[in-house]
Formats: sequence, C-alpha cells, structure tokens
Amino acid sequence: MTDLFWPGDERAGELMSEAALLEAMVRVEAAWLDALVDAGLAPAAGDSDLTAVVTAADVDVLARAAESGGNPVIPLVQMLRSRVGIDAARWLHRGLTSQDVLDTALVLAVRDVLDRLLDELRSQVIALSILAERHAATPMVGRTLTQHAVPTTFGAVAAAWLDGIIDAAELVVDARTLLPAQLGGAVGTLAATTELAALRELPDPAFVASEVATIAGETLGLRVHRPWHTARVPLTRTADALVTCTDAWGHVATDVATLSRTEIAELAEPAGTGRGGSSTMPHKHNPVLSVLVRRAALAAPALGSTMHLASALTGDQRPDGAWHTEWSTLRTLGRRAVVAASQTTELLQGLHVDAERMAATLASSAEDVVAERLGVAELLDAPFDPDPATYLGITIDLVAGAVERGHTFLEENA
Amino acid sequence: MTDLFWPGDERAGELMSEAALLEAMVRVEAAWLDALVDAGLAPAAGDSDLTAVVTAADVDVLARAAESGGNPVIPLVQMLRSRVGIDAARWLHRGLTSQDVLDTALVLAVRDVLDRLLDELRSQVIALSILAERHAATPMVGRTLTQHAVPTTFGAVAAAWLDGIIDAAELVVDARTLLPAQLGGAVGTLAATTELAALRELPDPAFVASEVATIAGETLGLRVHRPWHTARVPLTRTADALVTCTDAWGHVATDVATLSRTEIAELAEPAGTGRGGSSTMPHKHNPVLSVLVRRAALAAPALGSTMHLASALTGDQRPDGAWHTEWSTLRTLGRRAVVAASQTTELLQGLHVDAERMAATLASSAEDVVAERLGVAELLDAPFDPDPATYLGITIDLVAGAVERGHTFLEENA
Amino acid sequence: MTDLFWPGDERAGELMSEAALLEAMVRVEAAWLDALVDAGLAPAAGDSDLTAVVTAADVDVLARAAESGGNPVIPLVQMLRSRVGIDAARWLHRGLTSQDVLDTALVLAVRDVLDRLLDELRSQVIALSILAERHAATPMVGRTLTQHAVPTTFGAVAAAWLDGIIDAAELVVDARTLLPAQLGGAVGTLAATTELAALRELPDPAFVASEVATIAGETLGLRVHRPWHTARVPLTRTADALVTCTDAWGHVATDVATLSRTEIAELAEPAGTGRGGSSTMPHKHNPVLSVLVRRAALAAPALGSTMHLASALTGDQRPDGAWHTEWSTLRTLGRRAVVAASQTTELLQGLHVDAERMAATLASSAEDVVAERLGVAELLDAPFDPDPATYLGITIDLVAGAVERGHTFLEENA
Amino acid sequence: MTDLFWPGDERAGELMSEAALLEAMVRVEAAWLDALVDAGLAPAAGDSDLTAVVTAADVDVLARAAESGGNPVIPLVQMLRSRVGIDAARWLHRGLTSQDVLDTALVLAVRDVLDRLLDELRSQVIALSILAERHAATPMVGRTLTQHAVPTTFGAVAAAWLDGIIDAAELVVDARTLLPAQLGGAVGTLAATTELAALRELPDPAFVASEVATIAGETLGLRVHRPWHTARVPLTRTADALVTCTDAWGHVATDVATLSRTEIAELAEPAGTGRGGSSTMPHKHNPVLSVLVRRAALAAPALGSTMHLASALTGDQRPDGAWHTEWSTLRTLGRRAVVAASQTTELLQGLHVDAERMAATLASSAEDVVAERLGVAELLDAPFDPDPATYLGITIDLVAGAVERGHTFLEENA
Repeated sequence: MTDLFWPGDERAGELMSEAALLEAMVRVEAAWLDALVDAGLAPAAGDSDLTAVVTAADVDVLARAAESGGNPVIPLVQMLRSRVGIDAARWLHRGLTSQDVLDTALVLAVRDVLDRLLDELRSQVIALSILAERHAATPMVGRTLTQHAVPTTFGAVAAAWLDGIIDAAELVVDARTLLPAQLGGAVGTLAATTELAALRELPDPAFVASEVATIAGETLGLRVHRPWHTARVPLTRTADALVTCTDAWGHVATDVATLSRTEIAELAEPAGTGRGGSSTMPHKHNPVLSVLVRRAALAAPALGSTMHLASALTGDQRPDGAWHTEWSTLRTLGRRAVVAASQTTELLQGLHVDAERMAATLASSAEDVVAERLGVAELLDAPFDPDPATYLGITIDLVAGAVERGHTFLEENA
Repeated sequence: MTDLFWPGDERAGELMSEAALLEAMVRVEAAWLDALVDAGLAPAAGDSDLTAVVTAADVDVLARAAESGGNPVIPLVQMLRSRVGIDAARWLHRGLTSQDVLDTALVLAVRDVLDRLLDELRSQVIALSILAERHAATPMVGRTLTQHAVPTTFGAVAAAWLDGIIDAAELVVDARTLLPAQLGGAVGTLAATTELAALRELPDPAFVASEVATIAGETLGLRVHRPWHTARVPLTRTADALVTCTDAWGHVATDVATLSRTEIAELAEPAGTGRGGSSTMPHKHNPVLSVLVRRAALAAPALGSTMHLASALTGDQRPDGAWHTEWSTLRTLGRRAVVAASQTTELLQGLHVDAERMAATLASSAEDVVAERLGVAELLDAPFDPDPATYLGITIDLVAGAVERGHTFLEENA
Repeated sequence: MTDLFWPGDERAGELMSEAALLEAMVRVEAAWLDALVDAGLAPAAGDSDLTAVVTAADVDVLARAAESGGNPVIPLVQMLRSRVGIDAARWLHRGLTSQDVLDTALVLAVRDVLDRLLDELRSQVIALSILAERHAATPMVGRTLTQHAVPTTFGAVAAAWLDGIIDAAELVVDARTLLPAQLGGAVGTLAATTELAALRELPDPAFVASEVATIAGETLGLRVHRPWHTARVPLTRTADALVTCTDAWGHVATDVATLSRTEIAELAEPAGTGRGGSSTMPHKHNPVLSVLVRRAALAAPALGSTMHLASALTGDQRPDGAWHTEWSTLRTLGRRAVVAASQTTELLQGLHVDAERMAATLASSAEDVVAERLGVAELLDAPFDPDPATYLGITIDLVAGAVERGHTFLEENA
Repeated sequence: MTDLFWPGDERAGELMSEAALLEAMVRVEAAWLDALVDAGLAPAAGDSDLTAVVTAADVDVLARAAESGGNPVIPLVQMLRSRVGIDAARWLHRGLTSQDVLDTALVLAVRDVLDRLLDELRSQVIALSILAERHAATPMVGRTLTQHAVPTTFGAVAAAWLDGIIDAAELVVDARTLLPAQLGGAVGTLAATTELAALRELPDPAFVASEVATIAGETLGLRVHRPWHTARVPLTRTADALVTCTDAWGHVATDVATLSRTEIAELAEPAGTGRGGSSTMPHKHNPVLSVLVRRAALAAPALGSTMHLASALTGDQRPDGAWHTEWSTLRTLGRRAVVAASQTTELLQGLHVDAERMAATLASSAEDVVAERLGVAELLDAPFDPDPATYLGITIDLVAGAVERGHTFLEENA
C-alpha cells in the first residue's frame, strides 16, 4: 500500500489494509466454526477450511455490498456461504453477529500494528540508549521558552526522549496484552449458541456457549473476556497508546526540527539517503523525517478523541453510528503510527549530533547561562566557576537512570 | 474507489482519489507552463501537452518516491521531465515550488467535492421543501430532553432540517467562490518568475510575474489572490463548510434514527432497497443510512479541528509538519462529506412519514402536551381547547418561511 | 475576572462572565415582557423594569439551583417572579422556554466578544499595515521546513500575517451580522404566544406571535429569524470565526517565537514592560506574549470541534446533552479569543524588528539562498546577480496589496 | 465554587479551584525548602512555615501578575519572599524552576480529583453490582441500530455498564499511582541544587541533589522520578483516564436517556428530588442527570486531545505554548469529571427500573425477537420455544462475572 496524500505510508506495508481486515474476518469466522464443531454444537461435516475461500480480489465487491447492512460482514458471510459446501454454509457464522466478526478482526489487525510498533520501539530504545550514553557528557545549552537558559547535555535530552518513548511503549504493551476477542452473538448474550447447546441437550448450555467463545478466542490468541459490544475501553486504551506514541515521537521530531534550523544546526537528520532535498535549492537539507513525524503527531490526538467519543455514545446493544466511526479511525491511527514509528527509528539510528556546534553555541551564551550559578555562588559567598560545561547537575544520573530503565524494558519485552 | 472500513465510500467515486490529485497536479504544471509561454518568459518550444504524460498507473511509484522530499511534487516533476521533450523539461515547473502545485491541486480536487456537494444540497433542499409542505399540517409530538413536550408538526421539523441545510449550503457556496490558486514560488515572492522577466528585459518584471500567476489561475478557473502559503483560511473555511454540512446531516440522521426506533416508528428509511437488513433477524429494518450519516457527523469535527491546528502552526514560509497534515485530512473530510451527502439525499427523497402513527403518539400524550395551553387559558380565564392538534402556533409560517428560503437558494445557485 | 490557570485572562474583563450571562438573560426576559405588552398580549400592569432585580450577587444561588432542571433559566424565572409585582410575575417568561432565554443571552454575550475582537482586529490591521510598509524593503531570509530557502522581506512576512488576520476578521464580521435572537417557545412553534393572541381574539394570532418575537429581537438589536433550537449554525459559524482568529494569531505568534530564538533574534517582543523575565535567569527575555497566544491557538480548534459535535447531535426539539455542552465551551472560546486578541495587538504594536540582524542572517547564507536565481540565470545564459537583497520578486506588491486590503477593511468596518 | 455555565459544577467543591492550586504551589515550595534544610544545603534559619502565608485572598493579585512571566509561580515566589523572614526569603525556591512548582501543584490538585473519583467509582461499582444482581433475570428487549433485536436482561445491561466503569477505574488507579513530583530545576538537571551541594563540599553533590528531590517528593506523597518537563505522559495518562471515565458514564447516560423516553419508559431517573421539572410543562420528568452527564462525555474527548497535542509539541527544555495549554485544560477536565462522577453515582443509586414495562415491550415484539431462535430450532429440526424470556443465553454468567470483578476491584482498592 502507498498513499499519495501521506508520503511514507508504504512503511506500514499491509498492516490494517483492506485485505488484512478481510483476511482477519475470515480467520474469525473460521475459528468460530472450528470451535462450534469442537464443542459438538456443529457436526464435523459443517467444518471447512476457509483459508483462501475469499481473497483480496473480493475486497472491492464486499466493500460495495457493505453499505446495505452498514458493515462488510453481512456480504462476507453471504459470499463465504456461496463458496463453501452446503454443510459449512449452514453452520458458518452461526451464533455470531456482525459486530463479533468485525470487532475481533479489527483487534487482530491492530495487534499486528502493536507488534510492529513494539519492534520499532525496542529499536528506538536501543538507539536512544546509545545516543544518551555517547553524549552523556556532551554539553549543550538548555532552552526554555525559545531562549537560552542554563546548560544541559545532549545525553540528558536524549534521556528525556527515551523516558517518553518507554512511557509510551509500556502503554502499547498493556494495550496489546489486554486485546480481547469479541464473541457474544446478536446482543452479547450468546443466546443462539446457548440454544444450540440446549437443543443438543448438553449439560449447562450457557457454560458450553462460553466454552465455544473461549476456544475460538484462544485459537486467535486473544484474551477471553465478556463481550464488550458496548464497553469500548479495549479500543480506546489502544488508541490512547497509539497517540501517546505519536506524542513521544512528535516530541523528538520537534526537537530535531528546531535543532536542525540553519541558525542552530546542532543536529542533522541522517545524511546520505538523498532525503530532504529540494529541486530548486540544492543547498537544502530539510529535516524531512522530523517534518513527517510531526505531521502524524499533530493529527493523531484528534483521531484519538474520535475513538473516545464513539465509546461515550455507545448506546443500546449496538449503537447508531458510534460503532461505525471506529473502524476507519483506528485504521488511520494505526497505519500512521507505524509510519511515524519507522521514520523515528530511522531518524534516531542515523541522527547526526554536532557536539562542536553545541559547544560553540554554549560558549556564545556562556555568561548568560551561568547567571543562575553565579546567584548560587553569591548566596554562599563562594567562588564562582564561570565554565558552563561544568554546571551540569545530575545529567550523568539522568542518562544512567533512563538507560537502565531502557534495559529493563528490553529484557521484559524481548 | 471503495473502502471496506467506510461502507458507502464508493458514492464519492474518484473525488479526491490519488489519481484525481495526480491529474490535478499535472493540470497545475500545465497551466503554469502555458502561462510562462503566453507571457513570453518561456519559449514556445518549451510548451508541451502534459495530458496523459503521467497517469493513474504512476500513482504508486510517485507515492513511494514522495517521502524523500516530503511531498509528491518533487518526484512528479522529475517524472514529467523524463517524459517530455528537452525544451519542456527545461521549462516545466520553473518558478513554482512544490507547495504551489500541491496546494492548487488540492484546491482543484476539493472544488470538485464542493460542486458535487452543491448538487446534493440542491436535491436535499427540494426534497425537504416537498416534505415540509406536504406535512405542514401533520401534527406530531414535540420532544425535549427525550420527553414529550408540546405539539409541533412534522413540517416544522422538516423546516428546521431545511434551515440547517441551507445554512450549511451557503457556507459551501462561499468556500467554493473563494477557492484561490496558490502560485508564489519558493517562499511566495515569485522571485524566480520575476527574475525571468527581468533577465528577458521585460518592463515591470514583478507585474509580469503576477500576470503569469493570474493567467495560470484563470486557466484553472480559480480565484487569483496573493500567495497563501502561510495564511490557510482558504482551507479552514472549506473544512468548516464541510463540517457544517455533516453537522446538518447528522442532525437529520439523529432525528430519523430516533423516530425510527421500534417503539416510536413515526419515520422509516426508504424501503424496497434491501437496506438495513440483518442476516439472522429478518424482521429488522435498521435505519442504516442514518447510522452511516451519523458516523460521518461524529468524526468530522475532529478532522476540522486538525485543519485549524495546521493553520495555527504554520510558521516560517513553509512549516515543519503543519502543511503535510492538511492533505490527507482534507481528503478524508471531503470524501466522507460526499458520501454522507449522497446518503442524506437518498434518505430524504425516500423518507417514509407515518402521519397516523404521529397522530397516535400525540393522542397518547394528549393531556400532558396541552398542559402549557391550559396554563395560558387559566391565565386569561378563557376557555380551554384540549385538542393538541390545534395547538400548533406558527408552524405553518415556519414551513412557508423555510421553503421560501429554499426557493431563493435554488434560484441563486441554479 | 482573573484566572490563575490562564494568565492574561483579566484582559477579557467581564466578557462572558457569569454576571454578564445573568444580566443578558434578564435583558431577554425584559425585552420579551415589553413586547408582550406592546403587542397587547399582556396588560400594561404586567410590565416591569427588571433591571437590577437580579444582580451578580445572585449568581451563586442561581448556579446551584440550575442543576435541578439542567439550566439556570428555571431558577432565574422563579427568582424574578418572587421579586417583581404580582402582575409582572404572572406575565414574565410567558410564551418563552428556557432555551430561548439562554440561547439569546449567550448570543448577546458573544456579541460583546465579537465587538471587542473587531476593535482588536482593527488595531492589528493598522499595526500590521505600518509594519508591512515600513519593512517593505527589509530583506530577510525566507525559511521553509526550518531551512534557509530564498530571500523575502519582513514586509512580505507581515503582509501574509495581515492577510490571515483580515480573512479571520471578515468571518467575525459575518458571524456578528448573522447573530439571531432565539425566541420560539417550548418547541419553537410560539404556540403559547399564538394561543394568547387567539384567546385575546386578535386577528391572525400566528402573525401576532411572530411580531412579538420580532419586536423583542429588535429591542435586543439581534437578527430576527426562525427559531434555531435545533439548527445551530449561528453558534458554529461564530465558533469557527473565533478559531480562525486564534489560528491567525497563532501563525503570527509561531513566527515571532521562532524569530525571537536566541540564535535568530531577528524579532523581539515589546521591551520595557518587564515581561518575559525569569526569577533566576536575569538575561532572559522570553517571548511571553507569543507563548501565551500560541497556548490559545493550540487549544481552540478542539473547542471549536465540540461546538460542531453539539450541532450534529442536536436531536428532537431540544437534545439530551448537546445543547448543554455549548454554553461553557463557547464561553471559554470567547474569553480566550479576547485575551489572545489583546495580547496579539500588544505584540504587533510593540514588535521590535532587527533589520540589521535580518541582513546579517541573509548575508550568512548568501550563496545558498541565491542558488535558485543562479539556476534561472543559467537557464537563460544570462548574467547572475549574487546579491540576495535584489532577489525579492513581487514583495513590494504583496505588501501594497495586503495593505490596501487592510484599508478597505478598515473603511468598511469603521 | 459554582458555574452558571456548567450546572452541577458545585459538586466538585474546591477541587482544582484557583485556591486549591495556590495552596498546592505553596506546599511544593514548603516541601522543597524543608528538604533543602534537611539535606544541609540551606541553614535551619532558612526554614519557615509557609502555611497561610499566602491565601485564597491573594489569588486575584497573583493571577493578574502571572501574565508578565507567563505563569503564576514567579509572582508567588515574590509574594512569599516579601512575607517571610529574610533568611527564608533567601532560600525559598532555590534550585527550583517555575515549572517544577506548577507541575507538581497540578499533580497534587489532580490527585485530589482522582481520589474523589475513586470514591465515586467504588460507589458506582456497588450500585451497579446491586442493580445487576437484582435484575439478573429481568428480561428486556435488546436493541441494535435502534431496533428490537433479541432479548437480554437488564442485569446484563448493567453488567456491561459495570465492566466499562471498572475498566475506567483501573486506569484511574494506574494514573494515580504513577503521579510523579516534578523537581528538576531550570532545565531539569538540578544544576543549582547540585552546585549548592558542591559549594558546601558535600560528597557526591549530584546524589545530594537527587536526595533533596526525593525527600521533597516523598513529603508530598508523590512518586519520585526523573524530571518530566518534556515527557508529559504523567499528564496524558491522567487525562486519558479521566476521559475514559466520562466515556463510561456517557455510555450509561446514553442508555438511560434512551430508555427514559416517553415511548419506552423502562428506566427513570431518581424521583422525589424535584429534578427534571419544567416550569411550563408539569408532566415532564426529564432525565436531567443523564443529560448533564452526556454533556460532559461529549466535551471531554476534545479536551483530552489537547493534552496529547501539548505533549507532542513539547520542544526544548520548556516549550513555547504547549505547557501553558495544559493547566486550564486539565483543570476543566478534572472538575467536569468529578461533577459527572457524582451525578452518575446519584443516577445509579436511585435508578428506577420498570421490569413490568420491560416485559411488556418484550412481549410486544415477541415474535420478532425470537426469529433467531426459530432459525436455530429449524437448523436442528428441533422444537421451538417462542417465549423470549427463556432465550437469554449466558446473561446470568455475564452478571456473575462482572459482579465478581467488581468485588475484586473493591477489595483491591478499599
């Protein structure tokens, strides 16, 4: 996949593509059908290998047919039934509702996003740990409200980036762990499945129905939980984790964009890739990765708010619009997060740090940036050291602490 | 185009598709090249028919190449140059910057969206005028805060929908009228074009450069204005108009969804299309158009806010992310607006109004809904008419006024 | 009013304060009561001067009593009735509904905001016209994607700011002109008022009811329109205008913040006011006005989106939450816009432009920023002028055009 | 505190009031001063009891003085210094920066919000557990896309509400646990504090500085962490938890508002409080708590998005606007969440459930809502039980599971 309106989109590959969603929906139907057979609710003859029965070539037809019932599951089930044997056609989707299939497929698709993000986040933790340690003693000017303030080190700056990225990564881990299957039937009561069990005179039909859901959920590798048709925290938690990621990367990109300014030039984006050029201004080396990451960070919070709004407006046993708002929103958020993740990784792995320029900047403001230090010396009537490069407080510890946290994260999420 | 994540997307056809954007970008390059030649800045040999030099088949390659410079214009210009004669290759894009081409192409693409919306809005004004007049004297209960309040008529309800839709349509007309070309060169000063004119020793080179922009803008049928690289009201005004449309349709859809509830059933969506069915619950007639329109209305305001945010953060002569945020956001907003427009038109044209059911509902609350009227009678010590169907105030005038406004709108925007 | 959480809030004075809303609500009740009497629907004895019957001292009691019915009008009417004569108590609020009073009061309060904004916007147009003309020939480097690109002038930069501000100001003018009174009774049909006219045996009771609304609306100086209880464009158009203002100021502030950076220092905020200081870093001169304006610009789009969302979810004849969302949102947006307006005016009126520094920056990149010019010269095999300060394109015309537009705006909105 | 624009605001008492923020800022200064003395960096004579040195009466003056430096800490420190002894004045705020004081005070204020929310959430878990168990076998119709679908029970509906509320509550617990103190000095390096330790010739000055921060943080009962001046997850995580709460309550309120509709009337808000009345329509019993809760749920997601945006734009060692955006946004979100929490608790504790009406509704659609069941029977060629009240699937287990989860939550968060 590519997107002319979102350069870099191809970095997300087929994650949350239409084909990926379709394949995931089929997987859900297959897992459920298998579970019905396993539990003895459907006959063995009703089972069928659904793999490849419907393919990416069917996406367009299904998408066109989706409007009539408001979602793509209805035509998908019809299509599947028309392509499998008569027994499988009878048992397919039995006990499920469209929302089960779509929600679970969405969860499967977004899980792939989260897995990819964790790969990227791990790479970023490594890259940032290296940067932070390498520059633990590289003095630079600290800036507040756009003005030179007091000294810091680039290692400390990288450590702050690292903390933000680990904070976000922990939310991604949580969100991934808690991703549940959605398997509840028409209104979340598993009534049809329970009825099947009852009519088959199995003991404790409700338990059997729950078991079918458990088996299917486990087949898909998802958390088994009560139906959440109307309790949408699994999706808002995921969206919040994605937005927290783009926040963390936006923070990095904002700093890189600023520190790459022609007048500052303390950082530069990875060179040698031909990136950041201009057709008419050959001297330019635009921080294009940072620009594109910032783009994602500016747009993500609003998308996250839409997921929360949908959650808040989830009425009845399936709401009149809120649910339908979630699919494309989560997809856009997911793909963009992957693109930004990949761009940030590339940015961090190849970031050029100009320690000499940092030193020169610091020297240019030397008198100003030690004003606070002078105040401390005067307070104690003590000698004043005017060298900004020795006024660095706990920066070494900040780096060590953040790097250690990074190591722990990597070990726990290997 | 279709979108499995956004059922109904195909209603927007190729509006703002990647191919449409690409074609629009080529049109901008062509208009500019022609204007350079017309103004005598480029030689006649430099002109070239760019139509079909680049086609939809090139979208994927261009999209992949777009990331390196952050936008698709850079690779597009390279591709065009590689496919036209040497003279045209030399003159193509001369004096332009990527933002000129992308902004103007975006404006052209969104103009097609606005044109389509105006078609739909006109149809809606007609449909609503008919509904309002037909039901000008159809009493129904008015509801406030979910409870029966005092009577109104369905005509008055339709008149309020109509007012909202005309309000939105007027903003669409304004936004369309004000859509400007963006033709300013690297930092909006037309410096290269002016230089060309100067080196060709034309009198008043700056005037000549402005003329080139004027000619190209007029070729494209766009308003000619100073460059707005950093003053983004043309886009936010358009986005606000789009969101105001989805608001107006969301308002209609919210009412239809509520009044279609099984317990209320005073309205029903167009029948006979097979819409709104359920695979396992054959009795269901879901208000699926309303549901899908509400979906768009819930998501649009957040997208509109992103356009404003981008405008607010437009720094320098081209900002570091804000600009890049706009493209996909405006596209999503535009396509979704067209889909919702079309669905609303269909909804209004086929809306089933059950006047008997409205009368029955009103009768069931008859005593309550004339309580206010009783108060008025007691105030004047006057006789009390307990018939809710005669307590309708100015509803006839509301209908007449809104319908007349609709006629005026249709005449002025034929 | 002040707000410890929003420094500068006092610049908005009492605009949209609770006391201002209360006073406006009383004005609405008074205008309606007068109109009832004028139209002969209420006896002269029913009239009463409501001024000062309820005051700011009552705000707290009314606010506490507002929750029970969901809005402050219900307790306000009770309080007014308890404090006026028996005849006025009988006639007060007769024919109105809470939404009429609150909506119209909100409109009155926001009109004061728009008036204040227009004052500020006019001052900004003047200040920017002066800046643009003064610096029409002050060369500076143009920057794109954070990097030096080609030259421009500070006058051209100011002209772009000016265009953005006039664009926003025109929306404010529109929004103000279109602000309507809301006077429709329980469900917008003026049924009780019509009933009064009928029981008094006046000819054409519906016309009489509309006349009462017209008279009351004109008393308040507002546009007279059909009730818009459920068609909320008057509020979203106003909110969009406010957000477009904060966008325009955010654009200015973003540029000032960047160009005030220690390393760039081409602009500085007004000096001599003690602003921007730091307790421990005496050298600092933070661009605090820009920072605070940017704060507003970052937060406003989300508030605007809430107004749209409320509009989209306006169901029935009064919705179940959407209406209640608007009041505080519009108030926050309104006050913050005034604060940011005032700060921007101060910023523009006292902005320090360091033309020498601009020249020095430009000189430092001289070779790079004329690369495009060199390309043009090579294209024509013409002599190359390496002076960046003569590669300014149409900047003089940009300034003249924007300033002229400013003059027109000032004349039309004197 | 009350707010005429946000009825019910008084439920939040003084939480996050200006006085509460002021008091919290003083607590931070006091904890730091104590810690300096404890660590031997300041002399004992420098300590001072700051309690009541500054009070709510000073809020207005401080708020007015806050704009000059962009935040209220600068004038607060000046005021404190002018009111304490000369020694304390010398040592007060030494080593801190404004952001330390404001961020930590904000965290203290929001902690009180979270504590209050946990109280409410516990009450809601109890109320919902009771409702769910009481109505575990109360059949009602399940509704999807506004239409009757298949049966469920009110207990199952309440169990879904409960799951959503526990999901939200767990995020509140997490956010509260992770609230960190912010104590880092001018650019987060504790340079001045480290310098103090060095000039006093203490061993390992950086360690001493960290210890001061640790002691002060522990005094305030907050998590001790590296400075997060530019890594804002502590705030976005808190905001996301708040929004997830309003989502969960919005979900409840949306259902209550719908099920309270005159035509449905299966639920009613607590009676006997006089709530929900109308001055002119005495029969009305508006679901005013639900309306007001929905109001909060509609507005909260946009506020949450602003917190994320601020996080994403946090550049340098203190950003140029993003930080300043957070304070009022978090405050508004916090107070509104408390108000909505309290209203939801009241709603749930007094909710009137009309089981007979539910049964009647179900009976009215009996044939339709067992269509799915008929399909199952036909599939197995088994006898068909047409009673909807026996087609309830696993509803008993859903209730039991959710209630058990509630018990666990209550035990773990007693």
